[in-house]
Amino acid sequence: MTHTASVTAAILVIGDEILSGRTKDRNIGYIADYLTKIGIDLREVRVVGDVEAEIIAAVNALRTRYDYLFTTGGIGPTHDDITADAVARALGVGISVDPRAISLLLERIKPEDLNEARRRMARIPHGAELIENEISKAPGFWISNVIVMAGVPAIMQSMLDKVAPKLVTGAKMLAQTVAAGELPEGAYAADLAALAEASPELSIGSYPSFRDGRFHNEIVVRGKDREQVGVAAASIEALVARLLKERV
Amino acid sequence: MTHTASVTAAILVIGDEILSGRTKDRNIGYIADYLTKIGIDLREVRVVGDVEAEIIAAVNALRTRYDYLFTTGGIGPTHDDITADAVARALGVGISVDPRAISLLLERIKPEDLNEARRRMARIPHGAELIENEISKAPGFWISNVIVMAGVPAIMQSMLDKVAPKLVTGAKMLAQTVAAGELPEGAYAADLAALAEASPELSIGSYPSFRDGRFHNEIVVRGKDREQVGVAAASIEALVARLLKERV
Repeated sequence: MTHTASVTAAILVIGDEILSGRTKDRNIGYIADYLTKIGIDLREVRVVGDVEAEIIAAVNALRTRYDYLFTTGGIGPTHDDITADAVARALGVGISVDPRAISLLLERIKPEDLNEARRRMARIPHGAELIENEISKAPGFWISNVIVMAGVPAIMQSMLDKVAPKLVTGAKMLAQTVAAGELPEGAYAADLAALAEASPELSIGSYPSFRDGRFHNEIVVRGKDREQVGVAAASIEALVARLLKERV
Repeated sequence: MTHTASVTAAILVIGDEILSGRTKDRNIGYIADYLTKIGIDLREVRVVGDVEAEIIAAVNALRTRYDYLFTTGGIGPTHDDITADAVARALGVGISVDPRAISLLLERIKPEDLNEARRRMARIPHGAELIENEISKAPGFWISNVIVMAGVPAIMQSMLDKVAPKLVTGAKMLAQTVAAGELPEGAYAADLAALAEASPELSIGSYPSFRDGRFHNEIVVRGKDREQVGVAAASIEALVARLLKERV
């Protein structure tokens, strides 16, 4: 991997089934974790349905704004799988059945079963690199800064593993978490705001969760300099300890 | 609820913690299900970080395009909770501490504990209706067609229950699922495409999942006319039965 200061990305999830609630997305969180770990900053996510104009508009909005755009969904053999054509149109390139993709499909499908629908899965925009997957063989593809992956989580994950070593990555975002327990956010918010203002290079967040009728709060310090993150986290730990003591 | 032909919505999820992968969103799927059930068509979702300009841009893009915009996240007492101010700015209205919101907070917080940070949770854009929640008392709000809710799932769900009876809803999207089992998508894609083309008022999708090394496919017919949905589903059931028989 090559390293530069900051590399950004967006995710575009494509599929009516996510918007209807039928399918619960499991790719956004996975890709978010993955990108954070390798040093790419995820900045935006969008979900759109299986509507060509919507996909084209979202692809163009996101690919022009971030270093990478990862898409999931819509690359199977059925009529509602329109991602490849939409991406080709968004980029203004042609698309046709790719012999390299046919070869991959033939590793899993018998030649006599390679019907028109299955050949659709080999439609690849001109100029794209294929992204193999170990699971179903039907490839994703990478064109310009757009990385087109399957929606089925196991297949998407296999594709992401193939792509990751080739991505340009930046400094990794490091995170340190301080448990505030049942100390209410309102008790430490002012001190935390002062610390955040004094540390513009860090991102400091307070995250409540609600279990068994009570809040359980965590404070997270994120940044790219390990020492800065550590110093801020230590000072938050001291703050939390002091406030907890005062409450007893 | 009032009923009109088609009512549309978008969701805007706000929070660095979703983009970093630290927190896995559980609100999108919940709201998607909820809206589908009450007859509102979710058309788009976006996730942005705790960055005012990003929130404003997304709020304006989505509220002008859909009948409703639901936001989650960023309405707590800490410095990274900037949703209320960003929404006020997006709509070009003022914002200040709202006495109605203070009253709600005082149901949970002692007057002597109502510090500056907690008073932040009572900052409400001018002209907004409050959305109460049974859990933490800190309200969300509804202004114009923008519905601003908490990010903590239990609280968001409580707010959505308060809002739902007041929403204008349309005809419900009905869905019927046909299990295709291990019948591969490529085997039925052509017939399904023909059926989809002949039924422009229906949305027909094929959804593979991958378990134990095999695909398990489901075909879903969605539409607002119960009879049309039923007829299409029956014809897909017959198709699947025929193809499964041919394969034996």
